Amino acid sequence: MWGRTDLIDETEEMVQHRIKKEKDVLKESEGIMFEESRDGAVLITSIEVDENGEKKIGKKKGKYITLTDLTVNPDDEESFKQLEKMFVQKLEEMHANLNLTKSSKVLIIGLGNSTITPDAIGPKAIEYLQSSSLSQQVDNVKVVMYAPGVTGQTGFETSDFVEAISNAFNPDLIIVLDALAARNSERLCKTIQLTNTGIHPGSGVGNQRKEISEEAYGVPVTAIGIPMVVDGPVLYADAMEHVIHYIGSKIEEKGSPSSALAVTPMVSSKKSSIDTKVLQPIFGEWVTWSTDEKRKLFEEVFVGKNPSLFVTPKETDAWVDHYAYLLSTGIESWITSR
Amino acid sequence: MWGRTDLIDETEEMVQHRIKKEKDVLKESEGIMFEESRDGAVLITSIEVDENGEKKIGKKKGKYITLTDLTVNPDDEESFKQLEKMFVQKLEEMHANLNLTKSSKVLIIGLGNSTITPDAIGPKAIEYLQSSSLSQQVDNVKVVMYAPGVTGQTGFETSDFVEAISNAFNPDLIIVLDALAARNSERLCKTIQLTNTGIHPGSGVGNQRKEISEEAYGVPVTAIGIPMVVDGPVLYADAMEHVIHYIGSKIEEKGSPSSALAVTPMVSSKKSSIDTKVLQPIFGEWVTWSTDEKRKLFEEVFVGKNPSLFVTPKETDAWVDHYAYLLSTGIESWITSR
Amino acid sequence: MWGRTDLIDETEEMVQHRIKKEKDVLKESEGIMFEESRDGAVLITSIEVDENGEKKIGKKKGKYITLTDLTVNPDDEESFKQLEKMFVQKLEEMHANLNLTKSSKVLIIGLGNSTITPDAIGPKAIEYLQSSSLSQQVDNVKVVMYAPGVTGQTGFETSDFVEAISNAFNPDLIIVLDALAARNSERLCKTIQLTNTGIHPGSGVGNQRKEISEEAYGVPVTAIGIPMVVDGPVLYADAMEHVIHYIGSKIEEKGSPSSALAVTPMVSSKKSSIDTKVLQPIFGEWVTWSTDEKRKLFEEVFVGKNPSLFVTPKETDAWVDHYAYLLSTGIESWITSR
Amino acid sequence: MWGRTDLIDETEEMVQHRIKKEKDVLKESEGIMFEESRDGAVLITSIEVDENGEKKIGKKKGKYITLTDLTVNPDDEESFKQLEKMFVQKLEEMHANLNLTKSSKVLIIGLGNSTITPDAIGPKAIEYLQSSSLSQQVDNVKVVMYAPGVTGQTGFETSDFVEAISNAFNPDLIIVLDALAARNSERLCKTIQLTNTGIHPGSGVGNQRKEISEEAYGVPVTAIGIPMVVDGPVLYADAMEHVIHYIGSKIEEKGSPSSALAVTPMVSSKKSSIDTKVLQPIFGEWVTWSTDEKRKLFEEVFVGKNPSLFVTPKETDAWVDHYAYLLSTGIESWITSR
Repeated sequence: MWGRTDLIDETEEMVQHRIKKEKDVLKESEGIMFEESRDGAVLITSIEVDENGEKKIGKKKGKYITLTDLTVNPDDEESFKQLEKMFVQKLEEMHANLNLTKSSKVLIIGLGNSTITPDAIGPKAIEYLQSSSLSQQVDNVKVVMYAPGVTGQTGFETSDFVEAISNAFNPDLIIVLDALAARNSERLCKTIQLTNTGIHPGSGVGNQRKEISEEAYGVPVTAIGIPMVVDGPVLYADAMEHVIHYIGSKIEEKGSPSSALAVTPMVSSKKSSIDTKVLQPIFGEWVTWSTDEKRKLFEEVFVGKNPSLFVTPKETDAWVDHYAYLLSTGIESWITSR
Repeated sequence: MWGRTDLIDETEEMVQHRIKKEKDVLKESEGIMFEESRDGAVLITSIEVDENGEKKIGKKKGKYITLTDLTVNPDDEESFKQLEKMFVQKLEEMHANLNLTKSSKVLIIGLGNSTITPDAIGPKAIEYLQSSSLSQQVDNVKVVMYAPGVTGQTGFETSDFVEAISNAFNPDLIIVLDALAARNSERLCKTIQLTNTGIHPGSGVGNQRKEISEEAYGVPVTAIGIPMVVDGPVLYADAMEHVIHYIGSKIEEKGSPSSALAVTPMVSSKKSSIDTKVLQPIFGEWVTWSTDEKRKLFEEVFVGKNPSLFVTPKETDAWVDHYAYLLSTGIESWITSR
Repeated sequence: MWGRTDLIDETEEMVQHRIKKEKDVLKESEGIMFEESRDGAVLITSIEVDENGEKKIGKKKGKYITLTDLTVNPDDEESFKQLEKMFVQKLEEMHANLNLTKSSKVLIIGLGNSTITPDAIGPKAIEYLQSSSLSQQVDNVKVVMYAPGVTGQTGFETSDFVEAISNAFNPDLIIVLDALAARNSERLCKTIQLTNTGIHPGSGVGNQRKEISEEAYGVPVTAIGIPMVVDGPVLYADAMEHVIHYIGSKIEEKGSPSSALAVTPMVSSKKSSIDTKVLQPIFGEWVTWSTDEKRKLFEEVFVGKNPSLFVTPKETDAWVDHYAYLLSTGIESWITSR
Repeated sequence: MWGRTDLIDETEEMVQHRIKKEKDVLKESEGIMFEESRDGAVLITSIEVDENGEKKIGKKKGKYITLTDLTVNPDDEESFKQLEKMFVQKLEEMHANLNLTKSSKVLIIGLGNSTITPDAIGPKAIEYLQSSSLSQQVDNVKVVMYAPGVTGQTGFETSDFVEAISNAFNPDLIIVLDALAARNSERLCKTIQLTNTGIHPGSGVGNQRKEISEEAYGVPVTAIGIPMVVDGPVLYADAMEHVIHYIGSKIEEKGSPSSALAVTPMVSSKKSSIDTKVLQPIFGEWVTWSTDEKRKLFEEVFVGKNPSLFVTPKETDAWVDHYAYLLSTGIESWITSR
């Protein structure tokens, strides 16, 4: 799907939201509750969407939490530990109202295709969990863990799989781990998103499947994801925007702070208004088009071309391993500490 | 369990059976139908056990087919191809009465722990199947394939897993792939056993689980296994038997055929009667004990000792890969050729 | 490095070459011998560069052969077999003048980092070779095979590694297998390049190392590579070109053949001349810039940004496995058939 | 080879040594310096062999240190940490006289076949080292790390490989990591042996190769190994001994301490003298044979039989991973702390 992102934080409205600094106003009028804070290098965004908000931004009503550390890298053990600590806190926060006890049953599902590296976070996290203390079922906590693979491997709808196991095990909570698609390549491998709105298996790679959600099964579902890929056309459009604004800012040359110093770098300077007049001689009418119009052009040009190309970090294998481990140890900590 | 083997062909009665050459007599009196033939290097044993037979030999009533090629080795592509061809024939033979059609649904389950090499045949076969043509669901054949892992990893009884998926998918046949335990180290990686009597997941590594069988689910279950491990004490007892009979045959020195020339080498010369009188001075009373009594002594001595030791071929990794591939391509051929 | 490609076929001159249809003229004037043919779906390009040519196009003098099949995909066993067959022919052709005999010694080196999927073709091919018949050293053919990893893992310059083993083993030929960078994303995983000009280990991921070449060691070196990655900025610039030409062709609308029907699709219609006048109102002056100037702008904008992002096909893991196998079996065939 | 062990601690003399409690006497007369201590669960044995000792026990003159913790198991993180700590101390002790500085160069080689699980400790340790801080070459410490594979894969003698790299890199110390064979199955995965006497690659799986040692290269070589396999016949003979002594002790029934309580359980009660008179009626003359004579009988019986069978723990995969990690982090700590 065009312009697709699995991150609520990247929806156009959320971006506008932030830029306009009209959070409180938006909240009441649009049905979106928005909170942002920072802890060290980690930016924490909490968003609650209600029925009105759902219509506005096209994201299901419910709670979304994102943890973003744009400085983290695969060799940086310390930042991963910090992220994990905050992840455990957010797991607690997300499930506070569920009143889980030591005897509650949790079903953990790692979605994704283990033979496609950037899609393997879910299966790899389950692998770690299956050799963790959770597999030894201490106390009365009952945890069941599966990586069902994808429908194209198993022949069975993943959501039907989850439903079958859920019916047999009867859990109090389902946690679903998955790789996500992002719109902004800067966020690849830098964000963890938690949401209680469920997930469509396979949506991260372009095919719609039945939903895994509380509505579908009658059991609370928490989806946890990491953005691992960007679709080509999205990237191209954003790259061109980048170039235009770079030229624009060069022309304006007003000592504006570089994007490196921006407080929220993933909402980068390219979104700020630029005088299109100075750019038109160089880039023509095109520069006056909206972001959306430009994206549509790229969509039209590239439709069906290299549908299977995507952009990932060079160190994807290392990122996947690190986040799979982070998710597994974070979930283990949270479950065993209850 | 002591003296345990997953191979019907190794039960004491089957061994006696063969030695006494009283096949027809046994058949009628004991409820066991026994057929043996040879095709090239492959020995084919077909055994049918009825209620009477079940009581006699402690193996469930039903059909058992074993294909044994004692000459096969991991570098020997030709023998594997031959084994695969016969495996496809036996799949056809085993399921002849089920009247499967192109629209029949098959659930294939690979049992075992993928992180323990000799136990990984099932999961690895599923991996191959999931990237075979079966995952593309040609025609109307509907195949669903899973490697659920073991209960100690997932927290869920494997038989409950199979039941849950079976209820949701409603297959006409369940095929279960697994690594087996053998009593005789010479059969390791040399035999394929097919049976319609089902399987106890994990029985190959010493813990009893709920049965996966037609009785349990109301769906025909075909279990296919390869012996990959021998338990230590079984091996020690048999090794000592070997030594005693070696000495015995040296003493008798009557030009008896060497085991290398025996027609059915896995029922080796050590089972032939030896004059215990000549052996008693050397090995004492002990030599007069029955095989069973000797095994019980070894069991008593080694109980609880190194329970986690087992014997495997040096090239286990290669054997596992080869048999997983053989099973996957054999099953793929059989299903797509219907 | 900007605009970098490891494929001679993608150098600006080669592209011009083809478009101008002035092959014979170019050949004599520029020191480049160019031949192109087609066999089924496979486009075969043979290029010989001499000293003059080297200065012109910045590619080392020597022989380059590329096999390109734009229709191949990971599920398409038949095309891979066809590619392998032609690869063996080209191995023979490339080495015809070396007079290798059954007693010649060959050192095969698989370059790359096995922990970065698209860089793992070399190591994985060696893995296959090490379990092939070549590891059994039939006849007098002596083959030594290593995957040394990358300097950032081992601490040792890869070219020093090859030199050390070469000095100790004293081969008649060194074959080096590696993943390459391409400029054109359409060629990813679709081309095999053979050259006798050697290779710079790690050049495909942006860092220069000492050369592995006949000049360096005094032993003929054949480098064989598959393009597996495209650098982000290259891709962005080409994507923008694509958009501009798409608009241009829409405006002209003269029934030109779609790129899908072009004989050599990787030299796509975007290279054909377009009337910039009709495009200038839309895209401004920018459209009149040369490809090179546009690329330089992208380079400037993106320098230091996401240096570690790259573009790969979704099925990279499958492509890597297939090409590693193709290279191993092709080389095995060629060596054992001599 | 019969009765073979890679552990000096298991040689008949060492065992006698300990039993006779004649350490000081032996030391002077036999050229063996023997020290034993205990730190928590870890038994530390330091042995120095001189020329006289070498002749006596058939182990090369030099220093041997073994760390043995019979209680360790793959889930026991704490014991592994303790073992690692002591391993670092012993690395320091073993190399005290080499006067290594921050600018000393170290070549680390992981021997073994990564495709045979119990033989993969060396390659896997190198994998960990290659992603450790050592691959970033901090300070002036120069470390080069390779897992060359085995001759049967690469076509090149492993010792020639080490020599070639050693000549090119010119290290001050070579550390060689390898899986070992043990005689006593109780020691599998429970012991780390360090020695400055070098190693024969492949000796752990039955084939002799050129030695990797200071004598061979003129560079100090420290070999570090973990026993991972026991050969079948050794095991059978010891199992029978076990049975005989079990019966013997039952007959004597003098409240002797069970082997579970013995101070050094790997020198188990089976070595204590037992009154053969009471055993002779049961086991015959056989019981009066020496351990050596019995082993020779087993050797004779089993020669050529199942040469490729061996005994490993069920959790081999987990043990290999844990020890590979222990070796890598231990060596990393030691090198970076200098």
